[in-house]
Amino acid sequence: MNYDQRLEHLLAAAAKVFADKGFHSTTMRDLSRASGMSLAGMYYYVRGKDELLHRVQERIFGQVIAGAQIATADPSLSGEERLRRFIGHHVTFFAAHMAEMKVLSHEADSLTGERRAPINRLKRDYVGLLRGILASVPAQPAPEAETRVAAYALFGMMNWIYTWYDPAGPVDPPRLAAQLTEIALRGVVGHPEAHLDPMRWPNTAAPSLGAWDGDEHRRPPAISRSDA
Amino acid sequence: MNYDQRLEHLLAAAAKVFADKGFHSTTMRDLSRASGMSLAGMYYYVRGKDELLHRVQERIFGQVIAGAQIATADPSLSGEERLRRFIGHHVTFFAAHMAEMKVLSHEADSLTGERRAPINRLKRDYVGLLRGILASVPAQPAPEAETRVAAYALFGMMNWIYTWYDPAGPVDPPRLAAQLTEIALRGVVGHPEAHLDPMRWPNTAAPSLGAWDGDEHRRPPAISRSDA
Repeated sequence: MNYDQRLEHLLAAAAKVFADKGFHSTTMRDLSRASGMSLAGMYYYVRGKDELLHRVQERIFGQVIAGAQIATADPSLSGEERLRRFIGHHVTFFAAHMAEMKVLSHEADSLTGERRAPINRLKRDYVGLLRGILASVPAQPAPEAETRVAAYALFGMMNWIYTWYDPAGPVDPPRLAAQLTEIALRGVVGHPEAHLDPMRWPNTAAPSLGAWDGDEHRRPPAISRSDA
Repeated sequence: MNYDQRLEHLLAAAAKVFADKGFHSTTMRDLSRASGMSLAGMYYYVRGKDELLHRVQERIFGQVIAGAQIATADPSLSGEERLRRFIGHHVTFFAAHMAEMKVLSHEADSLTGERRAPINRLKRDYVGLLRGILASVPAQPAPEAETRVAAYALFGMMNWIYTWYDPAGPVDPPRLAAQLTEIALRGVVGHPEAHLDPMRWPNTAAPSLGAWDGDEHRRPPAISRSDA
């Protein structure tokens, strides 16, 4: 592995340990064990676990923002299609990065002074991207505060999955993304009634989401992870 | 204060400290400072911080379940009205208990062996109450897995508020509850199109939510807390 690959490996391993043990309970020794790197090896990349937490958050926001921008950039897309793609990208991305998602949620406050502002800027950029898309969807005129509540309601339903969702369970990520997209389109932007057709509901993955060939008559077993 | 009041006071103070510092970083000395009780005084009520965390979670789930049951019990209510009341109760309850909400979200895994199962039972009861209400709302027939995703999507949008919402800001809790209720009714249960009337959208507090007399032409300033 080259420098970048080893750093990627270290950041992914660190995200898992932070998610499992919590940032404050994690030691550099835990991180060494999990990454298979020596303490000296890790200090070649970062100055300590504070910098690791910062790099984990910076990397994941950088990736999710870049991916969302690419997914929604095409100027010929309708606002609705951009919203579909934003949600589809967010849900499938984080379904593949559940540990990072938990770290972003739980350890936002663990960043110290100067490391906090750049991450908050990335978050604001990402929230701003969604709010811009919401504003471009033909829908009811809503005052500023309502758009903001709507954007965070959406992030809430998408981000809460780290507490209950098992990507290896019966509802695969594209299917989850499709269902959350429908809830968002209908609930947040007052999606046209065609989508209220009951038979279409759980079965409307955006084409860009790929391989899901949902069978609406199949009754999958309950999702396997705990109910908590 | 009598025994019960002092215990309530201790649990509320402990929830704030756990929310601010995280459970693992909190010491009994921190809790003594925050509650104004001596160490010996606290040990009269609980055996240690593990039991305190358990009691905080047990108390809050007990209260929110009891409140939700009372709010939705009337057998003459429609499923839709029960859903409105469930969401209105959840949002206004937790807007008044933001510290507890963060602790429930962040410290679920901090409960040890035998203390975990009773809390998970309470959570399942609470999720079950919402799923029962969702099932009673006339809507599209949805397979088991979809009902479960819908219930957690709802909890997601309601619970995520601990990361961004300021109850003292321009959007007060009844107004927040009303907007989330609309998103839920339209998005999750395919609410009838009457509610898609744009002018009604941000202005449909359930009567049971009390004093909100929203003015849909007013444009409130952005919510004050950070964008993170």
